[in-house]
Amino acid sequence: MGRKLTYPKRSSNTVNRYKHRATYDLGPIHSIINDSKVLNVSFNPGAEDPFPTILPMIGQMGSFDYPSASLDEPLGCYLHGYVSSRIMNLARTSAQGLPICVAASRVDGLVLSLTPNSHSYNYRSAILHGYAQLVTDEQEKLWAMKLITNSVVADRWDNSRVPPDRAEMSSTVILKVRVVDGSGKIRDGGVSDERKDTENEEVTGRVWTGVVPVWETYGEPVPSVGNEMAVPEHISSFVAKKNTQNRALAEKAVSVALPLEEQH
Amino acid sequence: MGRKLTYPKRSSNTVNRYKHRATYDLGPIHSIINDSKVLNVSFNPGAEDPFPTILPMIGQMGSFDYPSASLDEPLGCYLHGYVSSRIMNLARTSAQGLPICVAASRVDGLVLSLTPNSHSYNYRSAILHGYAQLVTDEQEKLWAMKLITNSVVADRWDNSRVPPDRAEMSSTVILKVRVVDGSGKIRDGGVSDERKDTENEEVTGRVWTGVVPVWETYGEPVPSVGNEMAVPEHISSFVAKKNTQNRALAEKAVSVALPLEEQH
Repeated sequence: MGRKLTYPKRSSNTVNRYKHRATYDLGPIHSIINDSKVLNVSFNPGAEDPFPTILPMIGQMGSFDYPSASLDEPLGCYLHGYVSSRIMNLARTSAQGLPICVAASRVDGLVLSLTPNSHSYNYRSAILHGYAQLVTDEQEKLWAMKLITNSVVADRWDNSRVPPDRAEMSSTVILKVRVVDGSGKIRDGGVSDERKDTENEEVTGRVWTGVVPVWETYGEPVPSVGNEMAVPEHISSFVAKKNTQNRALAEKAVSVALPLEEQH
Repeated sequence: MGRKLTYPKRSSNTVNRYKHRATYDLGPIHSIINDSKVLNVSFNPGAEDPFPTILPMIGQMGSFDYPSASLDEPLGCYLHGYVSSRIMNLARTSAQGLPICVAASRVDGLVLSLTPNSHSYNYRSAILHGYAQLVTDEQEKLWAMKLITNSVVADRWDNSRVPPDRAEMSSTVILKVRVVDGSGKIRDGGVSDERKDTENEEVTGRVWTGVVPVWETYGEPVPSVGNEMAVPEHISSFVAKKNTQNRALAEKAVSVALPLEEQH
């Protein structure tokens, strides 16, 4: 397409603090959502309750109509859940869809600077706002179930007992979020201290500064009692690949140059 | 006190799905919140916007009045943020406090069973509902800043340049959430498949089942360019301790016996 698609900046998704860390580009936002093992989904349960609530859910960005769409193109957010849960009941009875927020965040490092005030994390976070409705088309539902299962472990769908039977299809519900806006925030690089501290030898002589990288590790697969097979390739290669990727990402984040705004 | 304190079960926090995984006990709920490097905080930005939103924030449970209170006693949730952010402005102008939801979740393992429908995570998750107000007492604010800083790396507060100066104190705001209710959900153990699949040799002969443990790893601390010191003990011991704890927890979760409800 030759140009980068971005989400519109509305009051609800515009980043006001550390604006240089913000992104409205579809690509990085969708990628943060897809790399997140748990999505935090918030919604308002009803007029009698003042509190929004948050559910941890599993989901993925995708396009059923254009399955080859890449991450920087307009996509829906598919979320998976149980048929009679509260969020599903609310979405089912809402004509235009249930207004929700989907959030994902990941910590890549602890940024330890001279003073608590300038401590930070290296992180990637993203939110989407949109309207959630139940997927009623059987083919789209199956397609989304496969998409979500394969996001947990690549190729897992074809390496398990599929297709789901009638009871399994009716107990699982897929929500599709029509995305209205979104934003992401990414922080990487090293410590950022103010001159009043970096030029104070009493302080620099006794406070260690730097970054502790943080990443998610997958351990050796532990077979179940009833398991009859060796660990198959789709699992061992997934574990090895994720461990290499996650560690490299956290370590690479440390070495990124800080933007001008944070160079004191 | 001789008895276990629990949060009241209201419609907003009662777990209806997999009830045997639910807990309302203050101890485990507060512990999941405190072990979480990022808390997801949701609130409604205003009447003109239909979507609740979610902010990733850093926070800790604690009691300023009874600082020696243990995790299973009534505590407030202290959250840290920037003075002019939207959530702070809303909390500042709200007489009884801003209604919010605080959520934390952690994945301990991928539970890979015979059919996608019975796939799961080992996880710990918790939510709190409550009213957020700004901490105005200077001593309580300092106490909460220290509590939160030390939750990132133990003893970091005293090993950095403190106390914060006037500008630092006024740019940072601490929210205190008066908790109204809460609940937690914990899943551990191995795979749980239905008899229709475990007794189908065509399926058990080609599908691997078991758990892939997942945990958070801290890497070697990377010193900043300006750093003048060796890695101090409070950091190296924190990294070593967390790495041992996190891995042990994920591996232990695998071996927990499944409750009767999930033994097919």
